[in-house]
Order: sequence, then C-alpha cells, then structure tokens
Amino acid sequence: MLIKRLVSSFVPSSGFSSSGGPRILKTGDILRQTRTFSELDVLEYAKVSYDSNPLHFDSKCAQNAGFEAQIVHGMLVAALFPRIISSHFPGAIYVSQSLNFKLPVYIGDEIVSEVQAINIKESKKRYVTKFATKCFKNGGVLVIDGEAMAVLPTLAVEEASM
Amino acid sequence: MLIKRLVSSFVPSSGFSSSGGPRILKTGDILRQTRTFSELDVLEYAKVSYDSNPLHFDSKCAQNAGFEAQIVHGMLVAALFPRIISSHFPGAIYVSQSLNFKLPVYIGDEIVSEVQAINIKESKKRYVTKFATKCFKNGGVLVIDGEAMAVLPTLAVEEASM
Repeated sequence: MLIKRLVSSFVPSSGFSSSGGPRILKTGDILRQTRTFSELDVLEYAKVSYDSNPLHFDSKCAQNAGFEAQIVHGMLVAALFPRIISSHFPGAIYVSQSLNFKLPVYIGDEIVSEVQAINIKESKKRYVTKFATKCFKNGGVLVIDGEAMAVLPTLAVEEASM
Repeated sequence: MLIKRLVSSFVPSSGFSSSGGPRILKTGDILRQTRTFSELDVLEYAKVSYDSNPLHFDSKCAQNAGFEAQIVHGMLVAALFPRIISSHFPGAIYVSQSLNFKLPVYIGDEIVSEVQAINIKESKKRYVTKFATKCFKNGGVLVIDGEAMAVLPTLAVEEASM
C-alpha cells in the first residue's frame, strides 16, 4: 500500500558519477519523495497528535478562514522531511527544522517533498548535514519552505524503504 | 482516555485579572499541556508519517547513536505546539515553526509543552501571534526550543478540548 502512495527519487548534483558503487551524498544532491494525503491520513494524524483543529475536518470553518476546503495538518506534511532523510540514512538524528507554511495542502493534492544537502561537515565519524527542505504542489508551487539539520551516520545513500 | 494522558493549563502573565469574563490572550501569557508518549503512540505516528527510523524502534540502533533507549519522533513531540494553540483557538492557522531538538524524548517521559505569546498584532480582525514554544522533561529540562507564528481568529482563550 505504501509503495503505491509514496514515490522516492534521488537527484544527484551535476558532479555525480554512476560508477556502480554506493551513492555518496554530496552538497547539491536532492532526495525527493511524493505523497498524496487522504482523509484517513488526516484522521489518523489527528488521533496520534491530539490536534483536532476544525480547519482539518470542518469545510465551513476552513472556508471561513479563507481556504477552499479542509486542509491537511502542516506538521503532517512537514513530517515528509525527516521521513525522507531517515529512509535514506537510517539512524539519522534530527537536530533542527524550520518551517514556513506558505500555502494550504488539501486532501488529494500530490505533494512533492525534497531535501537538498547544502552543507556537510564531518565530526567524530558522523556527518552534520544541513538540508534545504521544500514541499511543492501542482507541479512546482511552493507550499512549505525551510531548513533542517541532521546528523547522518554515513554519507552512503540507502535505497529508501517504502 | 485522552483526559488521563493530557493535562492542560493556562498561566496568565502577571497582569491577568480573573474578572469572570472570557480569558483574553495577552503578551506574556503561557498555555501549557502535559503528555507522556507510549510505545503505541510512536508506532501509530510512524504509520501515518511513514517515518520508521530505527532510532524509534531498535534499542541497539538508538544506543549506537548515543541514546539510552528508543526515542520518540521529535516531530510528534513538536506537534504539541499546534495542538495547544488549536485547542485554545479553534480555527487558528499555523504560519511558521522553528524547532531545535536539544535532548531526546524517551517513551514514558512526562513532557510539559508550553507556548508563550510574545507578540500579538491585529490584522483584518485576526491576530497574528508569535509564540515562544518549549518542551521540558524531568521537571524543567529543555528538550525542544523554538518559535511559532499563528493567525488566531480571536484572542478569547477557549477551554482546551481533550
């Protein structure tokens, strides 16, 4: 079921050479996953987060606030960032995340989420990596923008588990 | 069940007067909720976020990363911030959030999460409010620090729904 609903890709920066060895993360590389949120996702997220803001369930409330319909929790959409990082780097430790929620995400919107390595520093055999983190909808409209810092146990990029 | 696991409180700034009318949010006021995360919470969050980083399930992996045991997803703990805001201000729109994950949260830790209004600006009959957002454990040890911006439909503080 997850495989149908979540698509993953690795976009190497221009210097990438496909020599057949493990892919090694470099500055500029982008890791990308696509997900579409359902009504059930919103319900399940509300249950575990206890966040039952009527904006997510009541179309009238959402319309009064200026939206077209109920919106997906921003923090659920933003969870795609640590999900992408940990699926390619199991054991990665999340250090920080900034999030600017620019536009609403509706149920059924196809969201393309990407993290781009913008700085990598080795420290004690671990890799402190800063990522630009963005989500897009409708083929390129920015809905969430921000940055994350994570400590990676390795720079070898695993195939994302689904 | 939720009532047992989530405790809510309102800590007015020093200027607060309990005149019997609705409580009106002022700069300095703190809204606080307490929650303890269970193994089931972590499992349910992993299901809906697709984030199955072994740090959250595999004690050996967590120990290799320097933790005592499996840790709770930072973004699940951070979800307490919009939860607090929307439970007191239904219809609040989340605009931004910054998060610094300072220390791990373990299953069973009692987490006190608070949002403090640090700036309130009226704009088109809505209230653009900046909050300092913090989570503590062990009676006062800071585990998550950051700021959030939300647009509130009113400054009247509702009793938090559980």
